[in-house]
Amino acid sequence: MIRPSIPSGSRDFSSEEVYKRQYIFRIIKGVFEKYGYQPIETPVMENLETLEGKYGEEGDRLLFRILNSGDFKKDISASEFAESTAHQLIPKVAAKGLRYDLTIPFARYVVMHQNEINFPFKRYQIQPVFRADRPQRGRYREFYQCDADVIGSDSLVNEMELVRIFDEVFSILGITVTIKLNNRKILSGMAASINASNKFSDITVAIDKLDKIGLQGVRQQLTKNGLSESQIQILEKFFSLTGEAKQMLNEAKLLLIDSETGLKGIAEVEKIIELLDISGTTKAAVEVNFTLARGLDYYTGAIMEVKPNEIKMGSIGGGGRYDDLTGVFGLKGVSGVGISFGADRIYDVMEELKLFPATTQTGIKILFTHFNEASLNYSLPLLQQVRVEEIPAEIYPSSEKIKKQLKYADDKRIPFVVLAGEDEMRTGKLTLKNMQSGEQQSLSIEEIIQKLK
Amino acid sequence: MIRPSIPSGSRDFSSEEVYKRQYIFRIIKGVFEKYGYQPIETPVMENLETLEGKYGEEGDRLLFRILNSGDFKKDISASEFAESTAHQLIPKVAAKGLRYDLTIPFARYVVMHQNEINFPFKRYQIQPVFRADRPQRGRYREFYQCDADVIGSDSLVNEMELVRIFDEVFSILGITVTIKLNNRKILSGMAASINASNKFSDITVAIDKLDKIGLQGVRQQLTKNGLSESQIQILEKFFSLTGEAKQMLNEAKLLLIDSETGLKGIAEVEKIIELLDISGTTKAAVEVNFTLARGLDYYTGAIMEVKPNEIKMGSIGGGGRYDDLTGVFGLKGVSGVGISFGADRIYDVMEELKLFPATTQTGIKILFTHFNEASLNYSLPLLQQVRVEEIPAEIYPSSEKIKKQLKYADDKRIPFVVLAGEDEMRTGKLTLKNMQSGEQQSLSIEEIIQKLK
Repeated sequence: MIRPSIPSGSRDFSSEEVYKRQYIFRIIKGVFEKYGYQPIETPVMENLETLEGKYGEEGDRLLFRILNSGDFKKDISASEFAESTAHQLIPKVAAKGLRYDLTIPFARYVVMHQNEINFPFKRYQIQPVFRADRPQRGRYREFYQCDADVIGSDSLVNEMELVRIFDEVFSILGITVTIKLNNRKILSGMAASINASNKFSDITVAIDKLDKIGLQGVRQQLTKNGLSESQIQILEKFFSLTGEAKQMLNEAKLLLIDSETGLKGIAEVEKIIELLDISGTTKAAVEVNFTLARGLDYYTGAIMEVKPNEIKMGSIGGGGRYDDLTGVFGLKGVSGVGISFGADRIYDVMEELKLFPATTQTGIKILFTHFNEASLNYSLPLLQQVRVEEIPAEIYPSSEKIKKQLKYADDKRIPFVVLAGEDEMRTGKLTLKNMQSGEQQSLSIEEIIQKLK
Repeated sequence: MIRPSIPSGSRDFSSEEVYKRQYIFRIIKGVFEKYGYQPIETPVMENLETLEGKYGEEGDRLLFRILNSGDFKKDISASEFAESTAHQLIPKVAAKGLRYDLTIPFARYVVMHQNEINFPFKRYQIQPVFRADRPQRGRYREFYQCDADVIGSDSLVNEMELVRIFDEVFSILGITVTIKLNNRKILSGMAASINASNKFSDITVAIDKLDKIGLQGVRQQLTKNGLSESQIQILEKFFSLTGEAKQMLNEAKLLLIDSETGLKGIAEVEKIIELLDISGTTKAAVEVNFTLARGLDYYTGAIMEVKPNEIKMGSIGGGGRYDDLTGVFGLKGVSGVGISFGADRIYDVMEELKLFPATTQTGIKILFTHFNEASLNYSLPLLQQVRVEEIPAEIYPSSEKIKKQLKYADDKRIPFVVLAGEDEMRTGKLTLKNMQSGEQQSLSIEEIIQKLK
């Protein structure tokens, strides 16, 4: 006998959890569609050549690979096996992998279907992704991403609209958030202004950790990366800029006066804020934050991130502009911008703040019980009558003790139960029991339907 | 540069296809819930020990296995590699696999969560499954199953309700179908009545192919399996029974007079038909068919299958009762019964019969166009006003030629376009263009909203 288990870092979802997750997905999906985004779906498995080399070394390490079917060892000689590392042998034993995110599959999709697509192409995707990461609280090996991207348009109207999507989704969910904005060009300008363009990547990695390791930690990291005290002091001037966006941007302009790229970044942020202002007030606070870096390599322009205000938690949404994501698959010069919602973290925030509405669960409204075969046969057509009215209803499948049948209704939180004994069958008036109040009423099936509708 | 592709047997879905698939899923889900079934979800990856040995040798061969992360060759010595077959090495290089169906993961779920579950447990699951099968028209390596099962109740009310679910789903989808019923106990009784109980499996496998290879083919196969001419002739008597259910069952009773199991099977089919009659007429034809076998080993009682009437196609739904599916995971003596919808085949049937309603697509209702920055800035707050009314709307992101913007609306089948030029900005009356008729109207934003609502 096998003691059943599931792979670490993966999860089963009960009905209650599925309903709550669907509630989140439904709201995200609804807002995506209201803003003109349409769904696509891509397969769970992608060819490894599509996935490898897109997420950096760390990402490649975290890919789940599918063992080739049939005789997986047929292309490896015994001596080759002895002399090669696992890494060297992978191409011979695995040709497919599980998708690591939805962005690379989307880029692959755009290139493969470029002749069927109308650009600018606005798509959303809500599907699971897979990472062989060390499982820990809140980090899973199989989890959902909810992405929206526009590809083939460099207009900053897109960035503005994506900020609005964040704003609207979190407002409907009841989570008060702050949406942080920055631009990779500003970060790039900062690096240039201290003559450290070659250390751009080190600098972004270091400041990305500001939240976790604090200013002192970032200082240490930058020193370790070979930055001088005077260079670090100038960077600190940027990071210390806070407050009202226009003021911050004006001060940053002075610091970036010699960097064309930096000033372009500033201008882009200004434009996004201007477009937001024109379009209407947001419910969320939108703030400029020069310490926002976003880890991913492919971002080149605007970057954004969402944090909940009432709870200490990492980002629950993020995104940015990438200039040439499809280039690697042969379609060059197509700019894109996208955002992603972290559904699992959003779930946790909503649980902690008790934000799920009580009506999340699509509930069964009524259970028909029965005492014996006659009572069952009497009830079956009535049950169908209720269902014709689109009222979710069920019948306890066997004539067990009524107590057991009532417990079933209670456990499944079914609000009403019908009892049909000899009296009821004679008079045609059923007994309807309210499971919460315990109250019983004698009603015809038509009256019951009226009551449940 | 990589020429992008996806694994053979897998598919991308465009928006139009996603919407159509979601339409099918939504209807199936809606009926499942109306009958008291609730959703659960299980991970894409399962431990191989959960999956292996459950689907027969053929099934094991079709499992996709996940290569262990890190140094997958660390537990294999060079000599072991040289001396072992791929099959022998699999346990050392792969501990996880992709689920092959939803039934075994469900059985695993029930056993793992038995203390949180209320029995009888009615769950549904709509998720993708994976099989390393040879891809061909209509057969994919990654496809969705839509399953509903009740576990922990041996009442035939469940079978009756599952027939009703088939009936209702296909009726809503507009597919006229025949639901075939049989019982494994009847097949078992047939085998016993010709003293061939030891050949039960051969017999079911052979008659399962009746549709494909015809009566002569089945005869040949049975002869090859060592059945005598007189044995085959008795079997043919069963198979030749057709027509009205009660009549067929009575005639079969005479043939099965010495088989207790066979008669029990007959009684079960009679009861299901009786319960169906009591509950109300079905839209689909429900017929008893003694040649229905269903390939899967674990069925022990009622079996059912759905075929479309207007099109030549394999089954688009099926199911049956299994007495002890959870036993293999340590929970013995729990009976279950379930059905499955073949979503991909249903999709193909609906396409061929043109059954998808025109409104499947959640469409964008209106596109705002603009001539220049002033016109863009004027439009942005109006766009938000439309969205506040829950009307899906978008704005073309850049001020390109109006012709291009109109083409975008046309390609995306957006029915209305707003033009806001200097005249419109001055008067506050926007030009609304009906993209189908070409008709233009001069309307305020409030009038436009009224028109689109």
